[in-house]
Amino acid sequence: MKKDLGSVLALYPTPLVVVGTMVNGKPNWVLVGHLGIMGHDHIMVSLAKPHYTNQGIKETKALSVNVVDEEMLKKADYAGCVSGAKTDKSELFDYEIGRNGAPLISEAKLSMECTVEDNYEMKTFDNFILTIDHTYAEEAILNEAGKIDYDKYKPILFEMPGYTYLRTGETAAKCMALGREMKEE
Amino acid sequence: MKKDLGSVLALYPTPLVVVGTMVNGKPNWVLVGHLGIMGHDHIMVSLAKPHYTNQGIKETKALSVNVVDEEMLKKADYAGCVSGAKTDKSELFDYEIGRNGAPLISEAKLSMECTVEDNYEMKTFDNFILTIDHTYAEEAILNEAGKIDYDKYKPILFEMPGYTYLRTGETAAKCMALGREMKEE
Repeated sequence: MKKDLGSVLALYPTPLVVVGTMVNGKPNWVLVGHLGIMGHDHIMVSLAKPHYTNQGIKETKALSVNVVDEEMLKKADYAGCVSGAKTDKSELFDYEIGRNGAPLISEAKLSMECTVEDNYEMKTFDNFILTIDHTYAEEAILNEAGKIDYDKYKPILFEMPGYTYLRTGETAAKCMALGREMKEE
Repeated sequence: MKKDLGSVLALYPTPLVVVGTMVNGKPNWVLVGHLGIMGHDHIMVSLAKPHYTNQGIKETKALSVNVVDEEMLKKADYAGCVSGAKTDKSELFDYEIGRNGAPLISEAKLSMECTVEDNYEMKTFDNFILTIDHTYAEEAILNEAGKIDYDKYKPILFEMPGYTYLRTGETAAKCMALGREMKEE
């Protein structure tokens, strides 16, 4: 018998990312853990409206989504502690400017360069729906087929109820392997 | 120097869930790995339009989102291998009927009972935007404060590039602890 916790967000853990965008001519970085995948070619990042970053995203329609691993966690966490409206965070990360004009974090091993297709607005949140123009990855996190290899690359994950960052663990199974076994039983 | 992989979905790993809904008067179950969090009180599940489940969700507006852990992975994976249009999956899981009429998986340690608020349609996908009416959790996965404890509860995660299921790992840090250290440096 399960316990009724009321209406509690429980879709964790999620990947943790640093979103980069140009705001008033300078790069700004914000930490985001509320996000998602829509269809097979869109991602979504959810940002409370008062964030300084939202202005830049609305103006430029261009942003980077940099996946956080343990090596960049300290700086990423810092980006979540201070607001770009009060503190200039432009030098927090070394960056390159992507083809769409958004700043990409050099030390992130995996980054997506994205364009805003739509904003699904809620009362206090902008939910930016993004197309992925380019995905950039370090060779070291790819397998022989050139795909991201989660045995080599371990993103940091976010969970709200305990307000912690978690590690990505080991492989439990290949998709459809267990289900196919069961079909044959 | 990172490599340009082209436009590749790389926002992984995500939590893995089994969505339950009534279709033609019977429970049906579908495995979903493309999903997300919007704002602080909505979740989103993205389902290709041909899924049998989508009919039921559209008719009833009621569904359950059952978070998958390793103990229920085999059945969850099976739910992803066969279509409810061809195979009656109603007896795959023991279930209880929630207050909104959607079937909730008894053996899932964490389930959300949800109502459809909107459908953000894409050409081949329904992206159901959901309010969370009730969140149900086993006592065994809660801490003393009654919150979900990710030291005790280890959801299974999904990643598309290698098409594997991954385990949730250990705690890396408390949120804002590293960032605050850096502020004081």
